[in-house]
Amino acid sequence: MRISNYLLATLKEAPAEAAIDSHKLMIRAGMVRKLASGVYTWLPTGKRILKKVEDIVRREMDATGALEFLATMVQPAELWVESQRYNSYGDNLLKFKDRKQSDFVLGPTHEEVFTYQIKQEVNSYRQLPLNAYQIQTKFRDETRPRFGILRTREFIMMDAYSFDTSWQNMEKVYNSMEQAYNKIFTECGLKFRAVDADNGSMGGSGSKEFQVLAQAGEDVIAYCENSDYAANLEKAPAIPSSTRQAPTQEMRKVATPNVATIEELVDFSKGELDAAHTIKLVVVNGKTQEHPLVAIALRGDHTLNEVKAEKHPLIASPVTLAHPELVNQVFGAKVGSLGVLNCPVYLIADDTAATVSDFATGANETNFHLYGVNWDRDAKFNETFDIRNAEEGDPSPCGKGVLSLTRGCECGHIFMLGDKYSRAFNFTVTDENGQNIYPVMGCYGIGVTRVVAAAIEQNHDEYGCTLPDALVPFLVGLIPVNYNKSEVVKEFVDNLYNELPKQHEVYFDDRSERLGVALADADLLGVPYQFIIGEKNLQQGNVEFKDRRTGEKQLLTIEQAKEKAKTLLANYQA
Amino acid sequence: MRISNYLLATLKEAPAEAAIDSHKLMIRAGMVRKLASGVYTWLPTGKRILKKVEDIVRREMDATGALEFLATMVQPAELWVESQRYNSYGDNLLKFKDRKQSDFVLGPTHEEVFTYQIKQEVNSYRQLPLNAYQIQTKFRDETRPRFGILRTREFIMMDAYSFDTSWQNMEKVYNSMEQAYNKIFTECGLKFRAVDADNGSMGGSGSKEFQVLAQAGEDVIAYCENSDYAANLEKAPAIPSSTRQAPTQEMRKVATPNVATIEELVDFSKGELDAAHTIKLVVVNGKTQEHPLVAIALRGDHTLNEVKAEKHPLIASPVTLAHPELVNQVFGAKVGSLGVLNCPVYLIADDTAATVSDFATGANETNFHLYGVNWDRDAKFNETFDIRNAEEGDPSPCGKGVLSLTRGCECGHIFMLGDKYSRAFNFTVTDENGQNIYPVMGCYGIGVTRVVAAAIEQNHDEYGCTLPDALVPFLVGLIPVNYNKSEVVKEFVDNLYNELPKQHEVYFDDRSERLGVALADADLLGVPYQFIIGEKNLQQGNVEFKDRRTGEKQLLTIEQAKEKAKTLLANYQA
Repeated sequence: MRISNYLLATLKEAPAEAAIDSHKLMIRAGMVRKLASGVYTWLPTGKRILKKVEDIVRREMDATGALEFLATMVQPAELWVESQRYNSYGDNLLKFKDRKQSDFVLGPTHEEVFTYQIKQEVNSYRQLPLNAYQIQTKFRDETRPRFGILRTREFIMMDAYSFDTSWQNMEKVYNSMEQAYNKIFTECGLKFRAVDADNGSMGGSGSKEFQVLAQAGEDVIAYCENSDYAANLEKAPAIPSSTRQAPTQEMRKVATPNVATIEELVDFSKGELDAAHTIKLVVVNGKTQEHPLVAIALRGDHTLNEVKAEKHPLIASPVTLAHPELVNQVFGAKVGSLGVLNCPVYLIADDTAATVSDFATGANETNFHLYGVNWDRDAKFNETFDIRNAEEGDPSPCGKGVLSLTRGCECGHIFMLGDKYSRAFNFTVTDENGQNIYPVMGCYGIGVTRVVAAAIEQNHDEYGCTLPDALVPFLVGLIPVNYNKSEVVKEFVDNLYNELPKQHEVYFDDRSERLGVALADADLLGVPYQFIIGEKNLQQGNVEFKDRRTGEKQLLTIEQAKEKAKTLLANYQA
Repeated sequence: MRISNYLLATLKEAPAEAAIDSHKLMIRAGMVRKLASGVYTWLPTGKRILKKVEDIVRREMDATGALEFLATMVQPAELWVESQRYNSYGDNLLKFKDRKQSDFVLGPTHEEVFTYQIKQEVNSYRQLPLNAYQIQTKFRDETRPRFGILRTREFIMMDAYSFDTSWQNMEKVYNSMEQAYNKIFTECGLKFRAVDADNGSMGGSGSKEFQVLAQAGEDVIAYCENSDYAANLEKAPAIPSSTRQAPTQEMRKVATPNVATIEELVDFSKGELDAAHTIKLVVVNGKTQEHPLVAIALRGDHTLNEVKAEKHPLIASPVTLAHPELVNQVFGAKVGSLGVLNCPVYLIADDTAATVSDFATGANETNFHLYGVNWDRDAKFNETFDIRNAEEGDPSPCGKGVLSLTRGCECGHIFMLGDKYSRAFNFTVTDENGQNIYPVMGCYGIGVTRVVAAAIEQNHDEYGCTLPDALVPFLVGLIPVNYNKSEVVKEFVDNLYNELPKQHEVYFDDRSERLGVALADADLLGVPYQFIIGEKNLQQGNVEFKDRRTGEKQLLTIEQAKEKAKTLLANYQA
C-alpha cells in the first residue's frame, strides 16, 4: 500500500475523554473515530486489523464443524416476550416501532432468534448436534459506554448456539469450543487465560471467560503459576492456608475510644495486633422473615465477595448493608464496635475467619474491643461459608501452589445454557426412543471488535502499538528517506516495492513527510518490520532494518534486506 | 462437507407468499428463512453464497485502490438534519430514541456519515482522491417488503463514497468504479447490463444502474443487440422511426358511440384504422398558474413515460391526471373523445406522435372521432417532446440498430453526486492555490444480498438453482448410492472424499436418504458437478458423472472421475 493513496489519519494527541491506552492509541493511530456515544466508525487501519481477527475466528469456528449463519440486527419483540427477557433484560435492550407500529428490538444477543429459527428446521435427534454461529453486529444501549472500543454500544460479535440431545453431548461441543477459543486467542498472538466464571444472568451452569491479560481490564483474575488454573475473582474459591490453632491467650476487654475500623484498631494496638488476627463483622439484610439480618465474620484484612454472598440462601440479593440504626438497636453497639461474641443474629463465619485463633473483635459495646478471643471457647458461629475474595498468596484450588492476581479484558465467553431457551420456545426433538426432549444448549461468544482493543491494551509502548504479527495492520514497512528528493532512493524503493509479494501488507511511506514524522507514524501503527532506506546507506550497499517491538536496528546488505522483506511477506499467514 | 453434519433445510414446497422463483427457491433450498416482514435469517447454504459475493466485491474494490471502512448501522439523527434528509427521506428512514432520549436512525445509506467522517480527516487536495467503501448492513423500513430477498428491509450493501477536487477527477473514479462493477458482475458469472439510469432523488447528475437480467426484475431495460447501449426504460430516448409523410386523406367526423379507448376505436373501425394511426390525448395537471392543465398527444399504441414527463417545465411532479370533470368542462367533451384539434390547453406532442399522418383522434365532442387528421393542415401542437416509453423495435440512440426490451434487477448503481453533501456539511479542502473548495463526490452501491437473489432469478430451472460456478454453495457433489448399506460404496467414497482438496466445497451426501431425495436435494441447491457412486458401476470400474446445468450424464472410469473432481476443486477460485 502506497501511503500517499491511503488515509493514515494519525494524530499527535488523543482526545481528552480517552482514559485508557487502547482508546488513545486507536484514535491516534487512525483506527477508529467516534460518531456518537459508544458508536465508532472504523477507518482503514482499524478495519484491516478487525478483518484479521474475523478471519481467524471464522477459520477456527469452521474447523470445529460449526455452521455459519447470518441473522439480522433487527429482531421482532415477540421473541423476547416469549423468552421472558423483553422486560428483564433491562434498558440495554433497545426497543422501537417500525412504520406499521410493530415492536422490534436491536439484537443485543441472539439466543431467541437462533432457538426460534433452529426450532423450525430441526425435529429429530438425527439432526443434532448442531452448532450455529455468526459474525454479526450487536447493539446494547449501555448507560455508560466507555473505554473506547472495549465497551461500545454497537459492536461485532461472533456468537454461536449449540443444540444437543443431552447434557453430556452438549459438554462435548462446549469442550470443542473451549479448544477452538484457545486456538483463536493463541493464533491472535495474545496472552490470555481461560477462567472459571460466574454465570451472571445467563442462566444455566458452567461457563468460562477468555480473559486477555491487560492492566486496564475490568475483571480481576486469580490464577496459579504452576497449573492452568484460573478463575474470575468473583468465582475463585478462597481457601484457608492453615487450620485453627489452639488458644494461647485469655480473652480481655480493651477500651478503644474512636476506633471504628480494623486499620485504626491495629494502629491503636501499637504492634500487639496484626489485621490477620482481627475479625470484623459485616451485617447485611437477610432474605427470610426468620433472619431479617445476617452477620458475616471476616478476617480483618479480607473483603466480602458479593457474588458468593448472593449465593447464600439467607442473604438478600443484591447484597445490601443493614441500616446502621437498626444494627445499633439489635447489637446495642455502633457499627465499628461489633463482634462475634453473643452475636444476636445468624452468624456466618468465612471459611478462613473460622481458622483464626487469639483474635481481636468488637465487644458489641461502643468504644470497646475484645482481645484474645477464640472460637468455641468464647464465641460460636452458625456455619462457615466461602464468602470472601481470594487474595494473592492464598492456596490455589488446584493444589499446586498459591494464587496470583492479574487484570483482564473479557473477550470470549462460553456457557452451558441447558434447556432454558428450548423450553421457553417449546422446542422439542424426538429422541432415539421417539420421546420428545428439549435440546440442551450451549452458547459461545467472542467480542470481535473488543479483541482489537484488548490486543492493543496488552501490546503497546510509549511510541504506539506493538501488536503481534497476526494482528498488525501492515507487516512490512518501507520508509524511504527523501523519497521525493533523491532519485537513487526513489528508484530503489519503487523497484523493491514492485518485487514484493502481498503488497497489501506493505506499508510503503511514499509521502513527502519529514523522516521523523514518517518513523513516528510507522511506530504508532506498530509496523513490526521496518526497512529505512536512505541514499547514504544505499550508496554503501546497505539498508537499515528496525525491529519495531525491540527497537533494535541493524544494517543489512541490500540483498539481505530484499530477502528478509520477501521472506517475511511470503510466510505471512493472514 | 459431510451433509450429515450440515443443516440442509431443504423443503418440498415453498410458502404460498413466495411469488417469484428466487424467493421460492431460496426458501426451498434452505438458504434463508423469514424472521419478520422483510427480515430474513441466512442459513448456511445461503451464507456460503453470500460470502462468495462479498469476497468478489471486496477483491475488486480493493483492486481499484478504494479503502475499506466500517461504519455503524446506528447513526445520530443530527447528521440527517444537517443534510436536510431527516424528513425528506420519508418513512423508509427508521427513527428511534436511545435510553437517554437522543435521536438516532438506522442507516438506510451512508452519505451523511461518510461526508461527516471524511471531513474530520481531510483538509487538503493532497489527501484526495479518496474512495471510501464498506460492506455493511442497512435498514430501510419499506412499506411493502416483497419478492423475498430482492427487496428486504435489512440487507447488506457495498457502498462507496468518493471525494475529489474537481468534477473531472470525480469522473475518473466514477469510470474506475464502472469498470470494477463490470468485473464484479462478470466474475459472478451473471448476465447483466450497465444501463443509463434516471437519478431519482439522489441529486447530482450522471448515473448508471447495473441490471442483472431476469424476468422477475422490477426494471425494464432497453438495449441494442448491436452495441453496448442500454438504458433503464425510464430514461431511454424514444426516437421516431420515420419522418412525417404528406397527407393523403381528407379529415372526416365519425360517430363513435361508446368508444372510449384506442382499442375500442380500432375495433370499431373494422380494419380501417390501426393503433399506430391514432393519436390519444392525456391531460395532466400543470405546474404553472398560466397552464393549470397540459395536454400530451401520444400515438395510440404508446405509453406515457412519467419520469420524462416530470422533467417537462410545465408538468406538475409527480405526474397526475387532470380531474375528468375539469377536463369535461374545459374540452366540452368527455375523456375518451378528446383530440388534438383546437386543443383548449397547452399541447405537447410526443416526438413520435408528431410524425404520424392521416391519423384518427377524438373530436372533442362526446361520442365522435375525427379520421384522416393531419398535423399543420388540421391541428397544431405547442411543442414536441420525448415523453413516451421507448418500445421494442424503436431506433436505438446508438444508431446501430433497434431497441430490444428486457427486465432486470438493479443490483448496482453508480452516481455522480457533485457537491450536494460536501456543501451540506460545509466540508471544504484547500486546493493547489490555497482556495477552499467543496470536494466533488460520487457514490456507488452494490446490493450484496440482492445479488444472490438476482443470480438465482437468472439461473434456475424446474429442478432448482443453476448458479454460475463462482456463486454455487458447493462445487462438487459426491452422491453415494446406499452409502450406509454398501461397504464397497462407503469405502470408496470415504477415501475419495479424503483425497479431495478444498473439502469445504464438496457436497458429500452421506445421509441415509433414498437416492431420489439425495439427487433432488443436490439439484435444488444446484451443485454443478455431481458424481453419483453406486456399487454396480464401481464393480465395473465406473462412476456416473452428471452436469447439473445441462442434465447430461456420462460414465467415467474411476480414475477419470477422481481426476475430474480433483481438478475442478483445485482450479476453483472462490
